[in-house]
Amino acid sequence: MAVPVSALHANFDVDYVLVYRFADTSKAEANEHFARLIQVLARAGLQIEVRNGDNCSLLIFVKPASDKILNNHVYRSRVKDWLYGVRAAQPDREAHSSLTEQPLTEAERYRMVYQMITDPREDGGAGITLKQEPWKNVESVFPLHDHRFNKEWMKKWSTTTFLKPEDLDEIRDRLGEKVAYYFAFTQSYFQFLMFPAAFGFSAWVLLGYFSSIYAIVNGLWCIIFLEYWKRQEVDLGLRWGVKGVSTIQQKRREFQHEKEIQDPVTGETVQVFPATKRLGRQALQVPFAVLACMALGTLIAVCFGIEVFLSEVYNGPFKSILVFLPTGLLTTLIPTLTTLLTSVATQLNDYENYETHEGYEAAMTQKVFILNFITSYLPILLTAFVYVPFGSLIVPYLDIFSLTARPFAENEEQLKAPNTGFEINPARLRKQVIYFTVTAQIVNFAMETLVPIIKRRGFSKYQEMKTERAAKKRGASPASTIQDVPEEAEFLKRVRNEATLDSYDVTTDLREMVVQYGYLSLFSVVWPLTPVSFIINNWIELRSDAAKICLEMQRPAPLRADSIGPWLDSLGFLTWLGSITTAALVYLFSNDGLGPDGNPSTIKGWALLLTIFFSEHIYLLLRMGVQLTISKIDSPGMEKERGEKFMVRKRYLEETLGENALDLPPSHSEEKITRASLEEDARQGTLHNMGPQDHFWKRQQSWEESAKVGAGLIEKMAPVDGKKNQ
Amino acid sequence: MAVPVSALHANFDVDYVLVYRFADTSKAEANEHFARLIQVLARAGLQIEVRNGDNCSLLIFVKPASDKILNNHVYRSRVKDWLYGVRAAQPDREAHSSLTEQPLTEAERYRMVYQMITDPREDGGAGITLKQEPWKNVESVFPLHDHRFNKEWMKKWSTTTFLKPEDLDEIRDRLGEKVAYYFAFTQSYFQFLMFPAAFGFSAWVLLGYFSSIYAIVNGLWCIIFLEYWKRQEVDLGLRWGVKGVSTIQQKRREFQHEKEIQDPVTGETVQVFPATKRLGRQALQVPFAVLACMALGTLIAVCFGIEVFLSEVYNGPFKSILVFLPTGLLTTLIPTLTTLLTSVATQLNDYENYETHEGYEAAMTQKVFILNFITSYLPILLTAFVYVPFGSLIVPYLDIFSLTARPFAENEEQLKAPNTGFEINPARLRKQVIYFTVTAQIVNFAMETLVPIIKRRGFSKYQEMKTERAAKKRGASPASTIQDVPEEAEFLKRVRNEATLDSYDVTTDLREMVVQYGYLSLFSVVWPLTPVSFIINNWIELRSDAAKICLEMQRPAPLRADSIGPWLDSLGFLTWLGSITTAALVYLFSNDGLGPDGNPSTIKGWALLLTIFFSEHIYLLLRMGVQLTISKIDSPGMEKERGEKFMVRKRYLEETLGENALDLPPSHSEEKITRASLEEDARQGTLHNMGPQDHFWKRQQSWEESAKVGAGLIEKMAPVDGKKNQ
Repeated sequence: MAVPVSALHANFDVDYVLVYRFADTSKAEANEHFARLIQVLARAGLQIEVRNGDNCSLLIFVKPASDKILNNHVYRSRVKDWLYGVRAAQPDREAHSSLTEQPLTEAERYRMVYQMITDPREDGGAGITLKQEPWKNVESVFPLHDHRFNKEWMKKWSTTTFLKPEDLDEIRDRLGEKVAYYFAFTQSYFQFLMFPAAFGFSAWVLLGYFSSIYAIVNGLWCIIFLEYWKRQEVDLGLRWGVKGVSTIQQKRREFQHEKEIQDPVTGETVQVFPATKRLGRQALQVPFAVLACMALGTLIAVCFGIEVFLSEVYNGPFKSILVFLPTGLLTTLIPTLTTLLTSVATQLNDYENYETHEGYEAAMTQKVFILNFITSYLPILLTAFVYVPFGSLIVPYLDIFSLTARPFAENEEQLKAPNTGFEINPARLRKQVIYFTVTAQIVNFAMETLVPIIKRRGFSKYQEMKTERAAKKRGASPASTIQDVPEEAEFLKRVRNEATLDSYDVTTDLREMVVQYGYLSLFSVVWPLTPVSFIINNWIELRSDAAKICLEMQRPAPLRADSIGPWLDSLGFLTWLGSITTAALVYLFSNDGLGPDGNPSTIKGWALLLTIFFSEHIYLLLRMGVQLTISKIDSPGMEKERGEKFMVRKRYLEETLGENALDLPPSHSEEKITRASLEEDARQGTLHNMGPQDHFWKRQQSWEESAKVGAGLIEKMAPVDGKKNQ
Repeated sequence: MAVPVSALHANFDVDYVLVYRFADTSKAEANEHFARLIQVLARAGLQIEVRNGDNCSLLIFVKPASDKILNNHVYRSRVKDWLYGVRAAQPDREAHSSLTEQPLTEAERYRMVYQMITDPREDGGAGITLKQEPWKNVESVFPLHDHRFNKEWMKKWSTTTFLKPEDLDEIRDRLGEKVAYYFAFTQSYFQFLMFPAAFGFSAWVLLGYFSSIYAIVNGLWCIIFLEYWKRQEVDLGLRWGVKGVSTIQQKRREFQHEKEIQDPVTGETVQVFPATKRLGRQALQVPFAVLACMALGTLIAVCFGIEVFLSEVYNGPFKSILVFLPTGLLTTLIPTLTTLLTSVATQLNDYENYETHEGYEAAMTQKVFILNFITSYLPILLTAFVYVPFGSLIVPYLDIFSLTARPFAENEEQLKAPNTGFEINPARLRKQVIYFTVTAQIVNFAMETLVPIIKRRGFSKYQEMKTERAAKKRGASPASTIQDVPEEAEFLKRVRNEATLDSYDVTTDLREMVVQYGYLSLFSVVWPLTPVSFIINNWIELRSDAAKICLEMQRPAPLRADSIGPWLDSLGFLTWLGSITTAALVYLFSNDGLGPDGNPSTIKGWALLLTIFFSEHIYLLLRMGVQLTISKIDSPGMEKERGEKFMVRKRYLEETLGENALDLPPSHSEEKITRASLEEDARQGTLHNMGPQDHFWKRQQSWEESAKVGAGLIEKMAPVDGKKNQ
């Protein structure tokens, strides 16, 4: 194996650990389940060691029983790749040699073993499913961290500003392409941010807020970045040899087929769920989206209204405290509501009953994106396009919210809007944007990094207490009392620890980035320092995510991917929308960068719409242009691919057609050949008496003869002089 | 060969005829050229017969020298297809058997022979290029018409309303996929027209002009039609086994490489022309487009102005005649200007120096489309969006055009715009649309069908006269005096006749259809009977095109295609634009279908823009929806493809992995196996003294043992009762 010796030996060559928890199953059942589990794993060709885990759990260590078995799996999957067009060349028939040609990366090895554990029986796997019948006792399956590598990794990253492609390759080799793609994206996003950060800063200094120049530059940047990334994805896919893996889709076990039909062509019986029916179910997304919009929208709107009322209208006591009321409400209610809606979305997604994991993921991402869109952007949209233009019309009606402050008000006056023409607060919008692009980011970061640590501390404490109590309560000696073999003790301690960690889900991190990108493309014109804040944030983000994977999460089982998946569409959508909002914002607020002159009467509908119309179509044109340009310039990866394809074709053509090439008759032997073939014809001719066509084709016996005849004709017909005859 | 005997024998088995014209070359040169030509053809494996053609031309009849040679070519191209992913399965190594499996269609045979003639030497062809050095004397290369089939074909079509898929297959088998795709498109367009025709008629009766309902329905129809066609294209591609042929691109001989570089991967020397440089050259398209717009635009605008002046302002004598002046101007000047611009476009395209035919074609199509767009739609756009809203402002300034009528005017009054508030003519727009959608179509049709006939008559007359004169003038006896062999005479006459015909170019016909579709999507709301007119027109169009190919054109050499190519984008663009124009038209003119109330003051800019904004975005949403829906429903062709792919994969996997599948250790023999492997390990272990991991993995000798250990642990740890321990 080409796997660095250090990595595995530090973990006693253990590839994966299965946690078998039998706390809530009767002893007999637990036993029987466990026996079956071991058997299945063994049958899948895995070698097994069992140790005791923390309270009521067993640790099952597995690795392939022999290199041969592993090699067969690798070879099988590579052939499959080739058949699906992921690899250009057919892997060498001799399994072992094909491996020596292209040694395994660590990630590939882990992926193989993972497949051995999870693949369905018919594909030669053990068919283990987590927390699901029949394996509901299997709590988690995870490879072990390579602590030596992790240390180096984090050290390296914390000292470098830019990650080199090699760094990404390293991630890919360790954690698989899916995670690597996230880091690749964040990295190139980070790099691309340099420009808008610099430009944004100077714009902030020189042009002030709502500068149309900044808007245009920012929009163009968004387009270029997105198209560049699309290209980058392809290129990385080629670099990592995963281009097209998304076409190899995994069936979902949860998929419920409606009927089984015989495939007319292949004759195989396939389980089908009518697309039309699914389409019907998917239609439910529309009401769901509307519902979510309304639920979150009203909540946000109300809190917003209260806030406006308290800050703009109310002028009684405790004002300074009361203003925080809406923020409090939001921060408490939004998450709860979101979780609620997310669970609804999940159910909806399950109901849509997708056949493949990929399809399921894509659909789910879509729904999650909608929810995030509302929670993240709606407040700002409200301020910009409702509060400012119509503020002076709405505010008077905000008295309804007076009840929030009534208990504190000394007199009605304090609850009345000032009769003097209400002035909207120009700084509000900017404040909001700053809040979302700086404060929120920091809060978010804190939540992300600190919470898990605390959570973990608490959890392990809780575990200990529990185990102790259990120990006191009953005869069964808790895990801790079962002595580990000394040379294993330290190792097992580590494993038990890792078993308590959460499993890492890359999509959450991706979502975060996409949402952040949204602020940039939609609202950064409000506050040009946005990219500056983001570039700082992302530098840390990249490192902290790395650290998170190393310390706070179980090592993820490496998965393959050839893109960041459906998030790409979300990015596209945000960019497009950006071309609209930005234009609108610029038109509405840029009166010499003094911020909004909250007087809606000065806003001309047609002018606003015209601005939007142009900006949007300019965006579309620019996008086309950029796409065209990028498509024309080809990248090293693509060159490589073309080369490989070419070589493969060349080889085949030579193999299959080498001899045929000789079949073309050389000019001189021509006569004989035609003679021969003519005699042939003649014979056939005599068999079924010769047709007219045979006469026709026999007038001239060989090409030399044809040449002569032609010459003769030219002689006859050609004009006397070389000139055209008039 | 699977080619129907009748077809070929009627033509003495002749596959292709080359016309070698030596009128303007000296005798010696002509002779030498000719000899070389014959030699090259022979070397390419073709059997040759030479006959005399009309004045100063030779007819070179060719067919493959032997079936073996042809088979090799077929096999070679099929292997190539397979390597490019056009075919799922690798063709049988035994060339002949692979042919018997999948017999040749007539089109495929003709394509093969055509390739034998035109392919470059290195691909085993003769490398003949028409009217270009070194073969500038080769005037044309064409297969012979199958008159028997043609008769049947036209008879059949003239009697059927709808063409069945089989009819399209027949075209494909005879004339190749490229032509078949044109007919397929026109056919499904024709079928789809049924609905808007019916709806349009009822709308015309019930809703009148500019009905928003019609607009919406029509827009939706356009979207559905286009998406349906895209799917149809794929499906036909699969049905005809040409999906992906567009990836097999042919190098252009005219391509001039800037430098030759060694491909870093393949090591081949490749001729390159830097993409960036080409991009620079392509940038010239922008000024060109602007120039064309201005040139054609001003011409149209001026004529339009004159017309308006004469019809609306001028009220002197000869008015009735003078009104036709602008139309006259247009009909004479537009074509000349267009041809001029087209030639410029062609030069521009050559200058862009594309590497492949496909690239060249695509770029050219784009340019042609722009020109057509201006000439076809600008007049109506002018009327709708300039004349009507701003008419009353412009007309007073039209006095400049008075000079066109001055000579006829009796007094100045006749040249002055009426002081009484000018009233724009509401019917003008409709009249114009009707002109373009009915009159123009008919004129066009006449031009297309009659002109060639007349032209041909004239041409052949001219030829005869010339030959006679030549005969009188000089000793060289003209072709006609050289006696043909009686049994060939009639045949040769036919061939000489076909040699005089033009060669058929399918893109012109396609362009026509696309332009027509444009009227439907952009302006049909003005006059809902538009689709009715089109459906009639297209029924005839389909037949007349068939007739044209049979009678007025040389039989085209069959080419492959998997789409109607770049025209698809044009269609998409027109549909999109339709969503804008239609909305605008409806807003501007639909005051209870009374036509425009030429009073611009009543037009609200913001309302107009809002209408457009919504309509466009509704269009985009609908399109997404339709695309999604169609993508979900899969077609027979796609099922077929999936099936084939599946079978191929299955076969390979069985071939390569059949035995490996057995390598997974069955549960019972497990112990031995692990034992064996363990001893193996042990031996290795002793060789380089055993590491800790070996100890770790040897604690449990087999999976049975692991099971036992686990059971023991469960025994120890499990809660006394089956409940979770609190």
